[in-house]
Amino acid sequence: MPIRRYVMGRGEEAFHPDSIRAAVSEFLSTFIFVFAGEGSILALGKMYTEKALAAGGLVAIALAHALALFAAVASSMNVSGGHVNPAVTFGALVGGRISVLRALYYWIAQLLGSIVASLLLRLATDGMRPMGFSVAAGVGELHSLLMEIVLTFGLMYTVYATAIDPKRGSLGTIAPLAIAFIVGANILVGGPFDGAAMNPARAFGPALVGWRWHNHWIYWVGPFAGAGLAGLIYEFGIIPADVPPIHQHHAVHQPLAPEDY
Amino acid sequence: MPIRRYVMGRGEEAFHPDSIRAAVSEFLSTFIFVFAGEGSILALGKMYTEKALAAGGLVAIALAHALALFAAVASSMNVSGGHVNPAVTFGALVGGRISVLRALYYWIAQLLGSIVASLLLRLATDGMRPMGFSVAAGVGELHSLLMEIVLTFGLMYTVYATAIDPKRGSLGTIAPLAIAFIVGANILVGGPFDGAAMNPARAFGPALVGWRWHNHWIYWVGPFAGAGLAGLIYEFGIIPADVPPIHQHHAVHQPLAPEDY
Amino acid sequence: MPIRRYVMGRGEEAFHPDSIRAAVSEFLSTFIFVFAGEGSILALGKMYTEKALAAGGLVAIALAHALALFAAVASSMNVSGGHVNPAVTFGALVGGRISVLRALYYWIAQLLGSIVASLLLRLATDGMRPMGFSVAAGVGELHSLLMEIVLTFGLMYTVYATAIDPKRGSLGTIAPLAIAFIVGANILVGGPFDGAAMNPARAFGPALVGWRWHNHWIYWVGPFAGAGLAGLIYEFGIIPADVPPIHQHHAVHQPLAPEDY
Amino acid sequence: MPIRRYVMGRGEEAFHPDSIRAAVSEFLSTFIFVFAGEGSILALGKMYTEKALAAGGLVAIALAHALALFAAVASSMNVSGGHVNPAVTFGALVGGRISVLRALYYWIAQLLGSIVASLLLRLATDGMRPMGFSVAAGVGELHSLLMEIVLTFGLMYTVYATAIDPKRGSLGTIAPLAIAFIVGANILVGGPFDGAAMNPARAFGPALVGWRWHNHWIYWVGPFAGAGLAGLIYEFGIIPADVPPIHQHHAVHQPLAPEDY
Repeated sequence: MPIRRYVMGRGEEAFHPDSIRAAVSEFLSTFIFVFAGEGSILALGKMYTEKALAAGGLVAIALAHALALFAAVASSMNVSGGHVNPAVTFGALVGGRISVLRALYYWIAQLLGSIVASLLLRLATDGMRPMGFSVAAGVGELHSLLMEIVLTFGLMYTVYATAIDPKRGSLGTIAPLAIAFIVGANILVGGPFDGAAMNPARAFGPALVGWRWHNHWIYWVGPFAGAGLAGLIYEFGIIPADVPPIHQHHAVHQPLAPEDY
Repeated sequence: MPIRRYVMGRGEEAFHPDSIRAAVSEFLSTFIFVFAGEGSILALGKMYTEKALAAGGLVAIALAHALALFAAVASSMNVSGGHVNPAVTFGALVGGRISVLRALYYWIAQLLGSIVASLLLRLATDGMRPMGFSVAAGVGELHSLLMEIVLTFGLMYTVYATAIDPKRGSLGTIAPLAIAFIVGANILVGGPFDGAAMNPARAFGPALVGWRWHNHWIYWVGPFAGAGLAGLIYEFGIIPADVPPIHQHHAVHQPLAPEDY
Repeated sequence: MPIRRYVMGRGEEAFHPDSIRAAVSEFLSTFIFVFAGEGSILALGKMYTEKALAAGGLVAIALAHALALFAAVASSMNVSGGHVNPAVTFGALVGGRISVLRALYYWIAQLLGSIVASLLLRLATDGMRPMGFSVAAGVGELHSLLMEIVLTFGLMYTVYATAIDPKRGSLGTIAPLAIAFIVGANILVGGPFDGAAMNPARAFGPALVGWRWHNHWIYWVGPFAGAGLAGLIYEFGIIPADVPPIHQHHAVHQPLAPEDY
Repeated sequence: MPIRRYVMGRGEEAFHPDSIRAAVSEFLSTFIFVFAGEGSILALGKMYTEKALAAGGLVAIALAHALALFAAVASSMNVSGGHVNPAVTFGALVGGRISVLRALYYWIAQLLGSIVASLLLRLATDGMRPMGFSVAAGVGELHSLLMEIVLTFGLMYTVYATAIDPKRGSLGTIAPLAIAFIVGANILVGGPFDGAAMNPARAFGPALVGWRWHNHWIYWVGPFAGAGLAGLIYEFGIIPADVPPIHQHHAVHQPLAPEDY
């Protein structure tokens, strides 16, 4: 393969599917990186204007989500595929990598997990009402919807590229790390604007237990739209067409055999 | 296996043990993630009310625990199984994965390690009295007990899913990372309420050297209850019954051969 | 090999290429570590003097970049080599590990990714003008240029040592972690002085969308100079000469086969 | 092996070398964890008393060291063994895992790396004088010496357990992560007391370039004593005697072949 590429003429390389895929991959990865990097600076600007939250508090929240999500994805990765997020399950459904029935199972389980967690939190904190998510003062609903779409797109693209892409072979440590880290980074961006849920289950349980439904639709429509978009783009733009579909179904919802590690 | 699943009828898939295990796994992982994520926000609310600790200080404490625990678990993983926590040893004992005698050895070693660390800390800091753990002002003892149970349940579930589950095959980097990260996340949740020990040895050494025993029982009963519960649920709810027990004994306390890495 | 080394006489070991390579490697790694460690302390001193940014804000920005870059590199690593940075592409070009045509493709994709991210950020935040990079008050342009050169040198050296060095064999988790972490550490150093871009694409998109071009040349010249220097030093100082070039071309821009993981 | 253990009588298991090694390992790992965890709380107490540094600043410094050290160790691991620290080289020398000549090479390279980094920092920051390390106000020299000994003991024990222990087989991602993370955790403990160098090269370069020699001896004697102690304890207390010495020499200073990954 590398030899073949080096003996190709220039014109041949320029339109070679592999060159185009590589450029698309660089485009999307740089997009994700700059969105988070530059966004974190704008987010701090927003916080200092609104005085809603000190930077140390935002770091604490982003870390709590990233660290716990790593443990959660790592724990379920080789049993259920490690979705832990109805939007990720939707993205896998859009890409044809999970059946509708199985997706329903996952959605119910994810929502129940979030509700029980919120109830136990309310109990253990002697009745503190969960906050859930809502749009910050001075931020429009449509802007927040766009924010959730873009943030969840980055998350789902990372899930595809590290956990689903059949060229990966096995799931290893890199998939839960990348998934947890992009969620942490995106909270540092979207937190001060709309909370940065990227996950309808994460939003639903606290909303139900704390009975706060203001702006709630954003945290369903945004993540589903962003994850569905990422599923379509990855499925048709990055993965080479010659990988047999049944092999593509491998990584998401099939428990791995020990020898895969 | 994937082919077999795809040719199953719908009714067949719905009650297939693998579908149920996957849904249980999604439920538990989402539970852990939402508890930590939403909990970290409630924790900041608690701190701002009580003015006990700035967010930057909470982040420093959570990071110190997570980073050091990673090194501690990684260092002992292939010699002792990397428990570093009497509650984890108890959870492994409940699941039948370690003998009572060996558990006693571990408990004594863990408590001694904590005492010597606390003594050296007192010496090196010219006599600063260790703080250990106690319930924050305005928080009830039973609420704190519930908090410790839930937090340690999340920790022990992660230990089972990443370090003990026989389907994993080997321990790699993912187990100590997941264990350290969930402890860091849980401190960001429980820290402002009851300190979030999740580990009786972590609580005992400083209590002895600093001679502070107020609420101390919580940091034994809570972690043991949470870890025992996680051991039972994982052992009977997630691990398929057809894995031979002697293979199940593999990961926890047997030094791995080099070729396992 | 180890036996051979131990039966060598002392004089023989002293001038053995392997001893010299090891010492050069220790020199460069200690350089990177001390620059970041000591530099982070000077950076805090700078911040407290200029009152430009609280430490918690700097941590949030460094974390957002490091966490998102990990996801971005991990996502593109086995498609494009995971550059996500025109300076890294330039360093690979200087070392003869990528063709000029392919580098052009990458540069265009990286700049487009950054522009689209900046546009979407401006939209989602209801018109906040991206900040991009500029030299802090009281800091000279040439000092900032030197800072960018040194910071990007450390980044590119890490890329070479963990992702390109043919002795590595495969890319695993260590390369994106090392790349993301050195960027995070370097932002904690250079952030308060010149922003610490180390990446012309990271600087260009926000500059264009926010229309801020002051000092912009520094964020092109510095990273290209630092990355080019690192490419030359690693290529001629560390990698043994007897590795066949076609094997050396392996890691950077060739998608890995599944069995490499 | 597991079968053999389970058919042993109780008395037999109690004095089996493997049980003792496991208990020693639990003791040491719990020691490291509690020292860092409890110590980070005392460190915050110290900071709030002395008002020397806000918690966010301490987190920034600890992160910069941990993140950069990961990149530095990962970059040099398969060329020089990834010491990046004269005390680690000394610990390897005490354990007989590196020759005196090679250790001298490493020490010179490490000190040179630190000096060049400090010089470039002074240049790039337009003359800011490096701070280096000194004992905080109100802290005794002998207490600081003890602090450095204990902190470096934890670091060197981690190096032995994750990077040198022949049972590991290969170095992977876990060794640089564990080494970087324990340094980050220990800075969160010792930072407010004596700076927590654990590394004479880290202290020497800034001391020379900033010409600050107050308490400097502590940062040589402490780390060398702690690392030497850890080398002796690990070599004689944990590693089973029946591993042939030439195999034990494997991991520290021999470049690994690609197939080891």
